This record gives sequence, C-alpha cells and structure tokens, in this order.
Amino acid sequence: MKIVILGTGNVASQLANALKIAGHDLLQVYGRNKEAAYKLSKQHNTTFTDDLKKINTKADIYIIAVADAAIPTIVKKLALKNQVIVHTSGSISLDVFKNNYTNCGVLYPVQTISKNGKTNFRTTPFGIEASNTKSLKVLEMIAKSLSANVFHINSDQRKTLHLAAVFANNFTNHLLTIAEKILSNKNLPFDLLKALIEETVKKIRTHSPASVQTGPAERKDSVTLEKHLKMLEKNPLYKKIYIAISESIQESK
Amino acid sequence: MKIVILGTGNVASQLANALKIAGHDLLQVYGRNKEAAYKLSKQHNTTFTDDLKKINTKADIYIIAVADAAIPTIVKKLALKNQVIVHTSGSISLDVFKNNYTNCGVLYPVQTISKNGKTNFRTTPFGIEASNTKSLKVLEMIAKSLSANVFHINSDQRKTLHLAAVFANNFTNHLLTIAEKILSNKNLPFDLLKALIEETVKKIRTHSPASVQTGPAERKDSVTLEKHLKMLEKNPLYKKIYIAISESIQESK
Repeated sequence: MKIVILGTGNVASQLANALKIAGHDLLQVYGRNKEAAYKLSKQHNTTFTDDLKKINTKADIYIIAVADAAIPTIVKKLALKNQVIVHTSGSISLDVFKNNYTNCGVLYPVQTISKNGKTNFRTTPFGIEASNTKSLKVLEMIAKSLSANVFHINSDQRKTLHLAAVFANNFTNHLLTIAEKILSNKNLPFDLLKALIEETVKKIRTHSPASVQTGPAERKDSVTLEKHLKMLEKNPLYKKIYIAISESIQESK
Repeated sequence: MKIVILGTGNVASQLANALKIAGHDLLQVYGRNKEAAYKLSKQHNTTFTDDLKKINTKADIYIIAVADAAIPTIVKKLALKNQVIVHTSGSISLDVFKNNYTNCGVLYPVQTISKNGKTNFRTTPFGIEASNTKSLKVLEMIAKSLSANVFHINSDQRKTLHLAAVFANNFTNHLLTIAEKILSNKNLPFDLLKALIEETVKKIRTHSPASVQTGPAERKDSVTLEKHLKMLEKNPLYKKIYIAISESIQESK
C-alpha cells in the first residue's frame, strides 16, 4: 500500500521502518520540523514536506503519529477528501476526525516505543477502530502486515487500555527509577535488583499479579512499614508514593 | 555442611530444596507449626521439631527463615552456643543476635520467593554479613554453593536494598494488579499489556530506567493527565497513586 506518515517522533520513525520492511510504499514524510522530516525521509529514500498543503494526495492511507495535542490541528489543516486517515494515539477518540473525514480510523500499538533500537511490532498488540467498512479493511491490512496480534477496540475501551498501560509501563518504570535512586544514594548498584525485577515479570506470565502480591504491606507488617517511612523522611515525594501504594495493597486484600 | 533450617514458609522451603541439591546435609527442620515442619522434613527425608529446646546441636549452621517479627523470639529461645547462626531478612539488623551469639550472620537473597515452583538461586544475588571471620567463612561457603552472585553488605546498606526491592518488586506488582483491574472493569484482557510489560523490563537491562521514562507525566501532557484523573474518580486509592507518581515523575525531570 501507498502510505504517507505524518510525524517524525518515536512512533512515526518506528512505524515508517516497520512498514517499509513489510513491503509498503512510503510516499512521503510530513514533519513540522523540516530537518527531522528530511532526515526520516532520507532514511527511507522518499520525499518529505513541512507544509500540510503539500501533502501527496495519492496514498491509500495517511498515518498521523504525532503528540496528542497536535492531532486536531493536523486534522483540520489537511486538505484530503476520501482518503483513509488514521491516528495512533491511545487517548484521542475517533471523533477527532468526524467533522473532516468519513474514511478514518485509529491504529494503536500497545507498546512503549523508543526512537532507537528496533521495536518488535510482530508481538505488539495493535488495537484498531474505523469509521466504516472501507477504512476498516485498509486498516486491517496495514495492522496485520505489522503484527500477529490485531484486535478491534472502540475509543472508550482504548482510553481505558491507555490508562492501564500508563500504570503498567510509565509508572512501573518510575518505581524502578526510584529504586535505582534509593540504591545510588548509598552507593549500591542497580544491578542487584535485576534478577528480582526479571522474576517479578516472569511470574505474571502465568499468574494474575493480584495472586502473587508479597511484601510488608501485603503482610500488614507495620514494623517494617514504619521503618521504611522513616527512611524516606527526607524524600516526601517517594514517601507519598510509598504510603499510597501500601494503602492500596492493604485495601485490596 | 550440616544445616538446620528454622522456618517452613516460602524462603525456608526454597532454601531447604536448594541446599539439598547443592549437596548439603539437612539435619532438621524446625517449625512452630508441627504439621508444616513435618511436611517439609518429609520432603527432604530428615527430622523435624516444633520445640526450640529440641534443636539438633550438631549442625555447622542454623538458618532462621521466618517472618521478621518472629526472629528475636527464636534467637532468645534457641539454646545454642558457638554454632553459626544466621537469618535471611532484608530489614533486620545483625544486632538481633548480639546478646546471644558471637558467631552469627545474615544471608539475604535479593529475590521474590514463592512456595511453589523452583526459585532460581543461581542467578539470585545473595547479600552476606557476618560477625567475625569464622562465621563469614561458613556463610560464604553456603552462599557460594547456592549462587553465582554473592556480595558483602552491612545491615544499614541491606535495609536500603530491601526498601529499594519493595519499590522494584512489591510496588511494581501492585501497579500491574491495578492495570489488570482497570482493564477487567471494561472486560479487556490483561494479556493486551504483556508485550508492553516485557518491553519495559527489557529496556532496563541496557538503560537506566530514569533515561527511558515516557508517558503523559514525563511529557507534562496536562490534557491527558486530567482525562485520566477523571477516569479514576470512582477509585480514590488509584487516583492518589496516579497523582503521587505523576508528581514525582515531573519533579525528577
């Protein structure tokens, strides 16, 4: 299929790469930042523009992979008609297109995507939603060419999935950051926790996380909880997190 | 070496198992709960007791693997003299032994240990601490027979390591529990997040977690943050966690 990518960030870069590998034809890259658009287009031997009025109109699908806040502006400024247009955001509704496009959809990869390295989209679940059968067909072909795990999800469910992903990925990563900082304050290497972290994730391959909860809060071990809070006294932000999560663990028993 | 294990819980069971496999001689199992002590001793073809006065005095090392709160009582009631005695707790100081024993130590596996399955101690870091050279030698032999990753750590550092482990393991697991609950409330399967969770952990094998932080809080995307808080309105505990972690992410930039 002939594709135009709008965006030059992590998601846009990784999708451009994966779509090329899947055999699609990348017609053009659009970027608000000319330099970035040029760079990404160069990588894939294609054209670029930083002007929404100069978007190539011959593509089968237009993929908007930009920051959530920029999506509505791009949708309004794009001068397309019956082409299929999609965005890749977890938290923006399909309705963002409704005043401008009849053939539209969402292509949401449930994954954390960095610019560097190569994202494994093959194992990444892709949630898709479309305004009509025509768009759905195009979207399904694109998604299935990238991933072995494509599923249908509406805007409301997708927002829930995105919220859950924030807890499971962004917040989890921040807890690991805190652990790293607590250790480095005492000159202890983060490596000491790596086997534990791997095991934590290994367990939930086969168990519900609720069923394998351990630790002082789970045991209602108030002596240890008090010790830990005292150790965190100089860091009110960490202490607040410690209290909030411990409370939630105890309430969920 | 000849070993007596005091305790019948997750850590005691897994250690008993690993110590036998490493070729040690498990002389006896002590458990406050007679049934549990019998069961664990049976598994390893050895003797058991529920009476601290009947502890076999011929072992080279006594390993106390019980709940933190029960350690001081066991230490006081045990009628041993020059034998090496250790506990396995992350948060209890070596001082717990000081009025009763000269040959003592700590054997702390930095791992989450379930009763079922087999814990891979070979890759588990073991933090050891001892009161003197004699105890250290015994402790080192035991630890190295179990793990390829044995390191020295004092009581103060060990407490810090334990606190960091609570963030990295217990709290992380609770965030995954929350993600699972948020999804199940909308009839979405937790499986949708598994590739994302695997990737989150994969990243920190090669990157500092602080350097790969993503998400609405990191981007200071206040529109999405507001949307999420609204979605969590009916769950004040989750909302409190969302606010506390987002605040900490934004402050750590």
